[in-house]
Amino acid sequence: MKYSEKRAEEISIAYIGGGSREWAWVFMKDLALEEQLSGTIRLFDIDYEAAYNNELIGNRLSARGDVKGKWAYRAVRSIEEALAGADFVIISILPGTFEEMASDVHAPEKYGIYQSVGDTVGPGGMIRALRTIPMFVEIAGAIRRYCPDAWVLNFTNPMTLCTRTLYEVFPDIRAYGCCHEVFGVKKLMKAALKEFLGIEESGIGDIYTNVLGINHFTWVSEASYKGIDLFPLYEKFVEKYHSQGYEEGEEHWLNSYFRSAERVKFDLFRRYGLIAAAGDRHLAEFVPYWYLRNPEMVEAWKFTLTPVSFRTSRREELVQKSLRLSAGKEDFVVEPSGEEGVAQIKALVGLQDLITNVNLPNRGQMEGMPRGAVVETNAVLKKNSVRPLLAGKLPDDVQNLAIRHVLNQEALLKAAMKEDRDLAFRAFINDPQLNTISLGDARSLFEEMLQNTARYLPEWLAKREME
Amino acid sequence: MKYSEKRAEEISIAYIGGGSREWAWVFMKDLALEEQLSGTIRLFDIDYEAAYNNELIGNRLSARGDVKGKWAYRAVRSIEEALAGADFVIISILPGTFEEMASDVHAPEKYGIYQSVGDTVGPGGMIRALRTIPMFVEIAGAIRRYCPDAWVLNFTNPMTLCTRTLYEVFPDIRAYGCCHEVFGVKKLMKAALKEFLGIEESGIGDIYTNVLGINHFTWVSEASYKGIDLFPLYEKFVEKYHSQGYEEGEEHWLNSYFRSAERVKFDLFRRYGLIAAAGDRHLAEFVPYWYLRNPEMVEAWKFTLTPVSFRTSRREELVQKSLRLSAGKEDFVVEPSGEEGVAQIKALVGLQDLITNVNLPNRGQMEGMPRGAVVETNAVLKKNSVRPLLAGKLPDDVQNLAIRHVLNQEALLKAAMKEDRDLAFRAFINDPQLNTISLGDARSLFEEMLQNTARYLPEWLAKREME
Amino acid sequence: MKYSEKRAEEISIAYIGGGSREWAWVFMKDLALEEQLSGTIRLFDIDYEAAYNNELIGNRLSARGDVKGKWAYRAVRSIEEALAGADFVIISILPGTFEEMASDVHAPEKYGIYQSVGDTVGPGGMIRALRTIPMFVEIAGAIRRYCPDAWVLNFTNPMTLCTRTLYEVFPDIRAYGCCHEVFGVKKLMKAALKEFLGIEESGIGDIYTNVLGINHFTWVSEASYKGIDLFPLYEKFVEKYHSQGYEEGEEHWLNSYFRSAERVKFDLFRRYGLIAAAGDRHLAEFVPYWYLRNPEMVEAWKFTLTPVSFRTSRREELVQKSLRLSAGKEDFVVEPSGEEGVAQIKALVGLQDLITNVNLPNRGQMEGMPRGAVVETNAVLKKNSVRPLLAGKLPDDVQNLAIRHVLNQEALLKAAMKEDRDLAFRAFINDPQLNTISLGDARSLFEEMLQNTARYLPEWLAKREME
Amino acid sequence: MKYSEKRAEEISIAYIGGGSREWAWVFMKDLALEEQLSGTIRLFDIDYEAAYNNELIGNRLSARGDVKGKWAYRAVRSIEEALAGADFVIISILPGTFEEMASDVHAPEKYGIYQSVGDTVGPGGMIRALRTIPMFVEIAGAIRRYCPDAWVLNFTNPMTLCTRTLYEVFPDIRAYGCCHEVFGVKKLMKAALKEFLGIEESGIGDIYTNVLGINHFTWVSEASYKGIDLFPLYEKFVEKYHSQGYEEGEEHWLNSYFRSAERVKFDLFRRYGLIAAAGDRHLAEFVPYWYLRNPEMVEAWKFTLTPVSFRTSRREELVQKSLRLSAGKEDFVVEPSGEEGVAQIKALVGLQDLITNVNLPNRGQMEGMPRGAVVETNAVLKKNSVRPLLAGKLPDDVQNLAIRHVLNQEALLKAAMKEDRDLAFRAFINDPQLNTISLGDARSLFEEMLQNTARYLPEWLAKREME
Repeated sequence: MKYSEKRAEEISIAYIGGGSREWAWVFMKDLALEEQLSGTIRLFDIDYEAAYNNELIGNRLSARGDVKGKWAYRAVRSIEEALAGADFVIISILPGTFEEMASDVHAPEKYGIYQSVGDTVGPGGMIRALRTIPMFVEIAGAIRRYCPDAWVLNFTNPMTLCTRTLYEVFPDIRAYGCCHEVFGVKKLMKAALKEFLGIEESGIGDIYTNVLGINHFTWVSEASYKGIDLFPLYEKFVEKYHSQGYEEGEEHWLNSYFRSAERVKFDLFRRYGLIAAAGDRHLAEFVPYWYLRNPEMVEAWKFTLTPVSFRTSRREELVQKSLRLSAGKEDFVVEPSGEEGVAQIKALVGLQDLITNVNLPNRGQMEGMPRGAVVETNAVLKKNSVRPLLAGKLPDDVQNLAIRHVLNQEALLKAAMKEDRDLAFRAFINDPQLNTISLGDARSLFEEMLQNTARYLPEWLAKREME
Repeated sequence: MKYSEKRAEEISIAYIGGGSREWAWVFMKDLALEEQLSGTIRLFDIDYEAAYNNELIGNRLSARGDVKGKWAYRAVRSIEEALAGADFVIISILPGTFEEMASDVHAPEKYGIYQSVGDTVGPGGMIRALRTIPMFVEIAGAIRRYCPDAWVLNFTNPMTLCTRTLYEVFPDIRAYGCCHEVFGVKKLMKAALKEFLGIEESGIGDIYTNVLGINHFTWVSEASYKGIDLFPLYEKFVEKYHSQGYEEGEEHWLNSYFRSAERVKFDLFRRYGLIAAAGDRHLAEFVPYWYLRNPEMVEAWKFTLTPVSFRTSRREELVQKSLRLSAGKEDFVVEPSGEEGVAQIKALVGLQDLITNVNLPNRGQMEGMPRGAVVETNAVLKKNSVRPLLAGKLPDDVQNLAIRHVLNQEALLKAAMKEDRDLAFRAFINDPQLNTISLGDARSLFEEMLQNTARYLPEWLAKREME
Repeated sequence: MKYSEKRAEEISIAYIGGGSREWAWVFMKDLALEEQLSGTIRLFDIDYEAAYNNELIGNRLSARGDVKGKWAYRAVRSIEEALAGADFVIISILPGTFEEMASDVHAPEKYGIYQSVGDTVGPGGMIRALRTIPMFVEIAGAIRRYCPDAWVLNFTNPMTLCTRTLYEVFPDIRAYGCCHEVFGVKKLMKAALKEFLGIEESGIGDIYTNVLGINHFTWVSEASYKGIDLFPLYEKFVEKYHSQGYEEGEEHWLNSYFRSAERVKFDLFRRYGLIAAAGDRHLAEFVPYWYLRNPEMVEAWKFTLTPVSFRTSRREELVQKSLRLSAGKEDFVVEPSGEEGVAQIKALVGLQDLITNVNLPNRGQMEGMPRGAVVETNAVLKKNSVRPLLAGKLPDDVQNLAIRHVLNQEALLKAAMKEDRDLAFRAFINDPQLNTISLGDARSLFEEMLQNTARYLPEWLAKREME
Repeated sequence: MKYSEKRAEEISIAYIGGGSREWAWVFMKDLALEEQLSGTIRLFDIDYEAAYNNELIGNRLSARGDVKGKWAYRAVRSIEEALAGADFVIISILPGTFEEMASDVHAPEKYGIYQSVGDTVGPGGMIRALRTIPMFVEIAGAIRRYCPDAWVLNFTNPMTLCTRTLYEVFPDIRAYGCCHEVFGVKKLMKAALKEFLGIEESGIGDIYTNVLGINHFTWVSEASYKGIDLFPLYEKFVEKYHSQGYEEGEEHWLNSYFRSAERVKFDLFRRYGLIAAAGDRHLAEFVPYWYLRNPEMVEAWKFTLTPVSFRTSRREELVQKSLRLSAGKEDFVVEPSGEEGVAQIKALVGLQDLITNVNLPNRGQMEGMPRGAVVETNAVLKKNSVRPLLAGKLPDDVQNLAIRHVLNQEALLKAAMKEDRDLAFRAFINDPQLNTISLGDARSLFEEMLQNTARYLPEWLAKREME
């Protein structure tokens, strides 16, 4: 990498999961808008064709006259080739396919267990973790060998356990997990500023929140916009909208599998006086007994259970679009995505400062959480430096909701690292979603879900246990 | 107090709850058997008559020729009188009456919440805590004023929060909580020694267990009898008895409201590979979703829901017996109770050493638990010294079951100390037994239970909240 | 206080030590340059005349046409009057007079103990602490009563113990200690940027350092200027200048009692590979055996012992200047001071963000240091929020140099709070400067120094102990 | 090993350093007195002849009719042979020879640095550590391979770093360090019991002390004999004897290189109100500026600098004795040594309980000390279990004396493990004994001492650094 006052050039980025048709494209477009950065991006994917298609798409994009950020894209056939000499590593993979994800999300339904996302906690998140951790063990090992000093940005879920695994395998890794979920609550604050104070132009970037918690179960304990304390404003907003819900755009929450009317968020604020930051679909999975007992309850709380069939069909459209893009039959509309990956890279090369929320092992930034467990708090990003702010501690009652998942994730990690099938099952039954079914049913579900994802499991997990 | 090599004399004991017809009698009888100790016992009770009756009973006992431990009993009318100059303080009170306890245990049943004891966690334990903490605030303050150097042995439930309150109010207090629940699991080990190794005479005192956890949810991570490791033996025992249960005496578990067939204990061992130490009725309340969902489930697991009506009727018998005893119409049969209070006093005056399990604020003896929270581990008792052993940490999965109660108890304490009704309710709904009902029902139950116990509550709790 | 997007008005500041002729003037001038802030400053000083003079000076300044920041200054006769309703409290007092300071610094010399400053650690710093802590006990109590929500900026030395006392007395206080010592090392980095990279214009504000340690014994573990890592550059600089020293301006270090040739700083870098951040005169007092054994050694290391006589004579000049200023016979030259107090206030009212080094009780920001001890690390200042960054930990060898002072300061605090003269003496003899003299001499020195400052001591310290 | 109620048989012990003519003989004799234990002892020593001689001596001893503990002794030629299948491992080696020790102790004298023992801290202890740590790395690795479940008792100095190394290399090792230094202070207590209370028969075993600190700098915070608090008694004793010293036997302290008049111990008690437990010769090395500045000071404090020449000449006598013993020309007088190794083995096989002081990594037993650093506190020894008691924390002032050595030892360990010569030197100069000489002299001394011990150093340490 070459740094000059206003630019960083010859940056070398490895993109693991480089065949992606969502995150990779967002990243390409954000880079295209940024004139202070340039270099090479090596795309690695177990689906080489997809990565190669993205090479074509990326290079077409760089060639456009209206594009300021010029990058050379190259699909590679091995992770080594991608990583060797990289300054940055982006990890954004789908662990398994939507087929496996369909099992994660829907297999438990026969026992009356419903999941709105199924990629973080709950039976789906846990089984997904069990097949993803071995992948991250491999990735971490490869980073240690081929680019130990690179900055590693993980976007893959389950965020906490993916990031945790990287550090477990390679404690000196310079990795962190990135998640945009907190932006959602800032949009609500923006709406409150507009509605109650008539402030139209507030930028998301000017809204400051002190973030603490774990990924997808993050909370805000302090919020301000310039000189204005946003807590009383948010309270007013919640009081106004909690019973009917709040829907910012024209689109109704029912029309999208990813939206909600924020009622879970509002309800949690009313319970605990602390602002829940993640999206309702994620939040609900951490306290399922209150919001997620059955589809009627979900409907009453005005959020959605995202069916995997929806993801599958959208995927088809994206494949088609990908072919059009690589063939030059369609062009990207290049607009800022609102995602922060590129801004973070700019900060790490020294072009700007940034305070944002990241997922990192706890070294004291979050009181009350076990040392080493991955927590989500703000950090200051500077030249070659990511330094968490002291986020404080969750109040005892909210901490109580979070800690059971933290400890369960730690147990899952140990199970995966020590190849301890029993411990994996004990973690499985400790999730609150599993408290409603019998031990026998839990055992059957566990085994069934493992079988459904067996293609992506190490042998010790894949083989069915004799009863 | 006067110490000579073989005896401690002129010991001054304050007995708070000195009208008790169970624990006080047990204590009297154990003292009567112990020739190395003598002195004065001042009995304080809000029911002065009961205390006075016990004065008569105690002095009659001391006067008996076959009694070796000679004590002067005196009922007093104020706590000051009891405490002034005390070397030891025994706290063994019933917070409120059985009427309040009936509400604790049975009021939640209309919402499908069943409790086997109702004095530790769950809705009953929590409401009991809310009325008991203010009593212990008062007691702790009085001890600081009248006998700050006394050793304080608490026997009152909820053990954890009572002991925790003493330290909250008077951090330099020399108090600890005593509980005999761990003896139960030692009896099972004794049975295993007999059954598998033919060892008949093993004394409970020779069975060593490393205890860790919180009161009534204690675990054993190490157990030996002289040179014999008891873990493999216990495992064999569990394998043999877990499906049918084990009943040591002739009496069937159904015949007593305090017995069980140990199936919960065995099941927990099979789940976690760690020995659960407390009785099944207590253990079940910490993980109610597995054992306590409804009376049928309780029956299947072969333990009992102890109805308060049973306690009330037994109380009547005891009152009658008390009158006969004080009038000299009946005499105690003096036999060792198996309780340890007297042995602990002997250790603290320097007459013997003792290693036993006690409840104390965590100063490092239990890794993973918050500092200051009351935990139950072994301690060494010596002359004027109670020093916990490093008990280690619970495995992540069991820790996960325990920590939610620990944090909840901490929240309850804060609520009580800061008079924060909202926080009290938030702790209430965080108990796993409350996860099964709606927020509205939880609110109604909370208010109803508070009203039922209002006579014993401070004003901020007693007054019904406007909705 | 009234906040509008670009301005904060009606800010109420209490200035404790408001008769100051150095810091108060600097503060006035910086405020005069800042157009986004305005309000009232109440000046309290035990020397009311001095405060009143500053009232005149301040109001004259505000009245000037070229001054953008308009403030109303008012001398008050009681601390209550100063604090009531304050948004900010500035504490910048001289604890005692230069007479007491003369004893602090020079009394130990007869035992061969030399001090370059004498206000932080060493015999002088410790005795100064003993007379200052009771003053801060009073100030903290008054803040709790009259303006518990105010932000409190302490500038008084000994910084660590003053700040520590505020939190000891009033744990919820929003106070921190401010110190400009770290700016010095940034100037050296600026010089290195110019000398080796030809970068002329680097602003101090663009140089980022990760600060950690305790006040006046601070270290830098990470330093960058935009995209440039400053560690290798600083190493080059040290290698070039360590033997002869570096003097930035034209003035020779011998000509000023406050300057040095940075040789101590360079030597510590060569020993430990970490950048010492404070000035040489301060650093040397923490490791006196290497730099401060006698005046010849000090001369060889090219720093100075600042005699108090110098301070006294400068004071005279300042008094004269003060009279001229208040009488309008002289005017301030208003230029930015380089101090940061005003910038910090701007950040706390929400007008800008700021990352700077502050002194705060350790809540996890510095690993290895005791919880609660005051440490110096970076923090992010935002609207109503000061949040430390995780600074990491000092390497074991440097930690070893620092921790003895940290523990000694904790012991001094306890001694002062519990009025324990013995503990105070034990802390006194634990300072490395006291290791070179006998216990008897240490006792004599301790008593003598206390007598010299007796006017400002509480009775338990002032009264000579019978031997 | 075979356990029956009253006996443990077929115990397999590996003795590393089995050619020892002091500790090994003590151990043999204590075993000879113990009828409940028997088995095999494999003696390994780099001096095979010495081990073989001990085989002969040991087997002769076992053959004696008056000997109750029957053991088979066998010298082996490799550490593998010694360890394979061992139930217990005794490590009691001399790292290097007396020639190396002569350098450790006496080389610093030319710089005015005197050491009374030179095997723990100070220049001698540190250089000794640097050559010993690699040996313990090897031993720990061998134990992991050949007997990972064995109990390992280390008697080798520097105790702290030897034990620390075992855990660094093999975290699951069941090792602890044993030291008899605390017995000394118990003898003083015994003397006080006799002198002031006329209690003649008090057994050392009945004196209870709460021990805390680090090896050779241990302290007692609580002491009792049955029902008697020994603190006031000890204070009286100190007041009587501190100025002249106390000498228990007939022999004058000057006549033995290992004795003292306890004046250092008494002086530390007078300074800190806490009982220093180790011998004066050891204590003085931790605070050399007060007791060890020069031979005159040592004489005034009435302890001794043990010259290595004395050890060398005694060694000659022992070699002669060894030949006589193995040839049957002399027989051991078999008497209890007062050492505890055999009693500890009895406890670990389950034949008795024991509370004694051991050296173990800090897992919470000593507040204020870094986790993992080896501390000395009491522990309960039971069947297969060594469990430390919570020892509390040293008061801040004493902690301050201890922590610098703890951190320095941690730094030395890191230096040794990472082969970091610079860090080793930085630790060296951080010892208080090195504060009195210049950096240049310290460097020369460091290099000289390393050269003197080069035969036993790894290459990275042995090779002289280019200046």
